[in-house]
Amino acid sequence: MDKNKVGEFHFITESYLMDFRGRITIPMIGMYLLHAASSHAADRGFGYDDMTERHTAWVLSRLAIEMTSYPAMSESVTLYTWVDEVGKLFTSRCFELVNGEGKTFGYARSIWAAIDMETRRPTLLDVAGLGAYITDRPCPIEKPGKIAMVENDTAGESYRVKYSDLDVNGHLNSVKYMEHLLDLFDISMFREKEISRFEIAYQAEGKYGMELSLHNKEMAPDSYSMAICNEGKAICRAAVTWK
Amino acid sequence: MDKNKVGEFHFITESYLMDFRGRITIPMIGMYLLHAASSHAADRGFGYDDMTERHTAWVLSRLAIEMTSYPAMSESVTLYTWVDEVGKLFTSRCFELVNGEGKTFGYARSIWAAIDMETRRPTLLDVAGLGAYITDRPCPIEKPGKIAMVENDTAGESYRVKYSDLDVNGHLNSVKYMEHLLDLFDISMFREKEISRFEIAYQAEGKYGMELSLHNKEMAPDSYSMAICNEGKAICRAAVTWK
Repeated sequence: MDKNKVGEFHFITESYLMDFRGRITIPMIGMYLLHAASSHAADRGFGYDDMTERHTAWVLSRLAIEMTSYPAMSESVTLYTWVDEVGKLFTSRCFELVNGEGKTFGYARSIWAAIDMETRRPTLLDVAGLGAYITDRPCPIEKPGKIAMVENDTAGESYRVKYSDLDVNGHLNSVKYMEHLLDLFDISMFREKEISRFEIAYQAEGKYGMELSLHNKEMAPDSYSMAICNEGKAICRAAVTWK
Repeated sequence: MDKNKVGEFHFITESYLMDFRGRITIPMIGMYLLHAASSHAADRGFGYDDMTERHTAWVLSRLAIEMTSYPAMSESVTLYTWVDEVGKLFTSRCFELVNGEGKTFGYARSIWAAIDMETRRPTLLDVAGLGAYITDRPCPIEKPGKIAMVENDTAGESYRVKYSDLDVNGHLNSVKYMEHLLDLFDISMFREKEISRFEIAYQAEGKYGMELSLHNKEMAPDSYSMAICNEGKAICRAAVTWK
């Protein structure tokens, strides 16, 4: 094997991508993770173009991000990514974010499926091919789990899917789900606290013009469950823990 | 002078940043331009940190982008940036976007002011210091000009400024103005046409929770004037030409 199992990527945080506190945001971390995941996969023959040739596409199914601290202005971030499990329908990819001195900012776990581009149905993964890259590097955070249903207990805020929300497949971009969900928290939460864990489960694809309702409910102190629904059915659930 | 006057930056377009047509968007180009502008300025002693030390900050005043073609998936983009004019209150920075074979995708022109971070009022620029980097490299597009007022002729769509809209100064991010404006066009416009010129004039800072109204009016075939208003006053005007 000519490629290392663990991919290493370098970023410098940029002033125009910080939030109002001068820190990078969960959606921005999501973008870094997607960049690293797609580059790491492409370098090993499982990238966007390789999947397209087989009329398939990667779909992010679940993502959990746990941060103990956040990169600030002009900080260098090293992002490691590796595959820790491959099944018939899902594969699991881990991430570690590290600062310039080698201190860990946080970890992330993601679960991916491959769909047929025509039918949009799941397809079987190349278990042997992908399996060759599995490594047991530790990712000491809880796996994505079950998220409580909250759409029936909360009023919900409406949102219509717009041009800028769409990804290359013409569906609601996975980073935009995160943005719209976090926008449900009042600015005072971001002033006073930090997100220690963000978890999201993508259940269906959002489409242009779709009328969504966005729900948020406090389940315990500093612990929230969220949902994005269309016609009463959740297309996404999320859970946010603040500290 | 140990630094070249013309800065050169390299990007590879990424699948998760494409729009539904598999092309990069005007806001994404805006991000590339901001990255190049801030890095080029920082390398020459006029970056975010240098300005902060003097209790000042760069403010983007006007931006015009003209594209003859758009980068597609996984294309390499070379972005050149240089300063072409420095005045007491404004400086002008140009950009050229070039593909892997040296063919020009398009050009951009931007006008910047510096404000005092406390008073938010314009401050005098270091004309001699900045002037040392002026070069006469050609930027063959029209300078940003006057944009027709349209807010009184159109109903406007409402939008409230959210957490994800805020930049590091706590104000509506300059790229988000672009996103919200372009979202006023129906998806069919993006399917059938391309934006050949996008121009924006930033007039006031959008703040968290601000209730905005977004306006769009066709002035001539394929030529639109737009405005973002708060309490009847434009905080931004824009003009979009389609081809």
